[in-house]
Amino acid sequence: MVTQFIAEYVSDVKYADLPESVRHEGVRAFLNWLGCALGGHRHGSVDVAARALAPFSGPPQATVLGRGARYDILLASCLNCLSSSVNTYDDTHAEAMVHPTGPVAAAILAIAEWQKISGPDFIVALCLGIEMECRLSKAVSVAPACGSIAWSQTGIAGGFGAAIAVGKLLGLNKKQLTWAMGTALSQAAGFRAMHGSMNLHMMHARTAPSGIQSALLARGGFTSSEAAIDGKFGFASVFSERPNIDALTKDLGSIFELSANTYKPYPCGIVIHPIIDACLQLRSKLTQMADPIVQVQIKAYREVLTLTYRKQPKDALEAQVSVYYWAAVALLKGRAGLAELGAEFLTDASIAALQERIQVETDASMAIDQAEVTVTAASGQIFDIRVQHCEGSLESPMTDEQLEGKFRMQSLAAVGPAALDRLVNDCWRLEELSDVTHVIRGLD
Amino acid sequence: MVTQFIAEYVSDVKYADLPESVRHEGVRAFLNWLGCALGGHRHGSVDVAARALAPFSGPPQATVLGRGARYDILLASCLNCLSSSVNTYDDTHAEAMVHPTGPVAAAILAIAEWQKISGPDFIVALCLGIEMECRLSKAVSVAPACGSIAWSQTGIAGGFGAAIAVGKLLGLNKKQLTWAMGTALSQAAGFRAMHGSMNLHMMHARTAPSGIQSALLARGGFTSSEAAIDGKFGFASVFSERPNIDALTKDLGSIFELSANTYKPYPCGIVIHPIIDACLQLRSKLTQMADPIVQVQIKAYREVLTLTYRKQPKDALEAQVSVYYWAAVALLKGRAGLAELGAEFLTDASIAALQERIQVETDASMAIDQAEVTVTAASGQIFDIRVQHCEGSLESPMTDEQLEGKFRMQSLAAVGPAALDRLVNDCWRLEELSDVTHVIRGLD
Repeated sequence: MVTQFIAEYVSDVKYADLPESVRHEGVRAFLNWLGCALGGHRHGSVDVAARALAPFSGPPQATVLGRGARYDILLASCLNCLSSSVNTYDDTHAEAMVHPTGPVAAAILAIAEWQKISGPDFIVALCLGIEMECRLSKAVSVAPACGSIAWSQTGIAGGFGAAIAVGKLLGLNKKQLTWAMGTALSQAAGFRAMHGSMNLHMMHARTAPSGIQSALLARGGFTSSEAAIDGKFGFASVFSERPNIDALTKDLGSIFELSANTYKPYPCGIVIHPIIDACLQLRSKLTQMADPIVQVQIKAYREVLTLTYRKQPKDALEAQVSVYYWAAVALLKGRAGLAELGAEFLTDASIAALQERIQVETDASMAIDQAEVTVTAASGQIFDIRVQHCEGSLESPMTDEQLEGKFRMQSLAAVGPAALDRLVNDCWRLEELSDVTHVIRGLD
Repeated sequence: MVTQFIAEYVSDVKYADLPESVRHEGVRAFLNWLGCALGGHRHGSVDVAARALAPFSGPPQATVLGRGARYDILLASCLNCLSSSVNTYDDTHAEAMVHPTGPVAAAILAIAEWQKISGPDFIVALCLGIEMECRLSKAVSVAPACGSIAWSQTGIAGGFGAAIAVGKLLGLNKKQLTWAMGTALSQAAGFRAMHGSMNLHMMHARTAPSGIQSALLARGGFTSSEAAIDGKFGFASVFSERPNIDALTKDLGSIFELSANTYKPYPCGIVIHPIIDACLQLRSKLTQMADPIVQVQIKAYREVLTLTYRKQPKDALEAQVSVYYWAAVALLKGRAGLAELGAEFLTDASIAALQERIQVETDASMAIDQAEVTVTAASGQIFDIRVQHCEGSLESPMTDEQLEGKFRMQSLAAVGPAALDRLVNDCWRLEELSDVTHVIRGLD
């Protein structure tokens, strides 16, 4: 049974067993996540969710980052994951189609506030949770698994990763770990019809408390199937026609999925990123010409229209998942950051008009980080840019400096300039901390 | 969009719009549910879950029936639904393959403790929640929908029913109702690998708080896709190859799924019930003969082995879903009640030995409430019983008196003889109550 195999590994692995590069990637993932949570904590979605659910919160066990509130660990983890997710600015394991850090980091940060956890223990749990979350997603989605792209892979895999990470921190034994996995897997849920609504991000956010709850139940002796993944009527059977169980076990402990994680330079779905890159480059040419755009032709990855098809998004949540919006904004404004989801852009008639002149074509030969954009100007001149590997992709990853810049930009308003240096410094030296909550002190 | 169609109906329907027979069935469903919750509240699964989750509970807003504890409405609803589910003794809509009342009743009872709710309002919400839960399940499971039998239909449909019922009680407007539905649908989860573990029942139980939370979020303005069921990448697309959306809307308000609900006379999956009936009848013949059983041949419904295949269950949770266990117990002991899941039966060597001499064959021509059992005695004599419609089935439903008897038997230990008459009486006159919590006063 594969849950036992995983439980053995999770239970036995130690900080020293993780390669230095993987540990560092864990720290980068955490830094990026914390910045996204601080950047998103004042989003309307978080306001509404906090107001609606706070009256049912348990004791003030954990901080909701930036919001001056403490709730029980379940609700706090949910809201922190929601904050980090709302701007679609977090991270992506492109092959697994998962935004891996949110569910795991939000869950274990809440645990760390409830029970003192050291930096190395935190990093191990984070790396393990992300590892198994990505492997689970791959087992039911990547060829030959034939999973439906309609599923939210973060929704179906996030709770599993969170349960494993929390189970590791709570010191569950192997039997309990299999139960925690089973209980979390049986809550795997979510589908992409939610794109464009607040609930898209709640599908990710709810996996954090789901993982915590599964681990807590297991610790208490609440049993679950030990054949939850590969058994009869198990997870693999319902989420895939040809599940690839090997993806969960092969090279476990030697090849790490975290090494294939990427961080978003733009706050939107990663299938849009190479198109933004191309449009930003074209923008500088066009500005020099002062030549109005007549037509834009985009060739991109096969799923770009499946996932980001909205031609005239009606609000910021829809704009996050609209290739037309970001191409138009990048071409006309020369920027593609959080500010570009503001009302003045969403109601800009020139952007709306350009969206109508954009044609998108998918190209089976193109990878997820590739795109070609051709602009025809009023003068008749044609400009063409082909992006081979977009910024932030695995082939052109964000450097530590770029990640830190993204972090500072998102966190400044929440913490102020004085605390920011301390915060950045604490994140980078996470492994030296005897209590990881040192990082978030002052962030409530 | 089908969620809008449903929201219109749910929002507009009044107590007087429900036929008298449907309202009465709602009361029967509640009575049966309350008895099961009182009968199950001391089960080890509830003990473990309560102990593990209580430290994270919010204010004492609602009662955990029988347990002398009050938690926030989310946790209380979860534990009450768990209590009602743990003995596999609740109710079943056979066509929808759903145990419909638990998720809905547990959710709205918690709401009723939090905000005063009248009997008629409670009954309307209960009937509506059950209605939509069963219809949703049918839309993705009954031919031609081709859903996988691996899914837990209660797990995937329960939260939807609960969200609708709670939304009705909280007076959500139509837009909010569609959001509540969407958010609940995006948490639809659960698969049958969990059979035989505590988490089988948690898959049902977690739908109650999921429905409440979805309705609370929607009330606060948390948006969700309005195309959550029939839209691109929606619920229907992931749970069925050929979803039958008509099942959700056809004759809504004139034909009621609650009229097809059935209540279990035996604490096990309903596919086993006709076999128990036959074995109990055979038992009386065999007793007269005092003739040992050499072989038992069972012919039954096509899914009997898919769902209840365990030949030598190792504990009560596995025994709940073992056709072999119940056939052997009924033949040897002449009873098939809650007591027959006790340790003295689970460790009885004669039962274990007989299980090995039972052969089960499925018969595509047999309905879910039919079975034929043939017993060969040591003398060579052959006894044969064919059950056309088992006790408790739609064709041979439990009468009000039988339901009351089941209720009294389960509730006696929890409430004592003096309070029992009052409790039974209050349940039957639910529609007269200005505050439904009157029923459960004294049950904490």
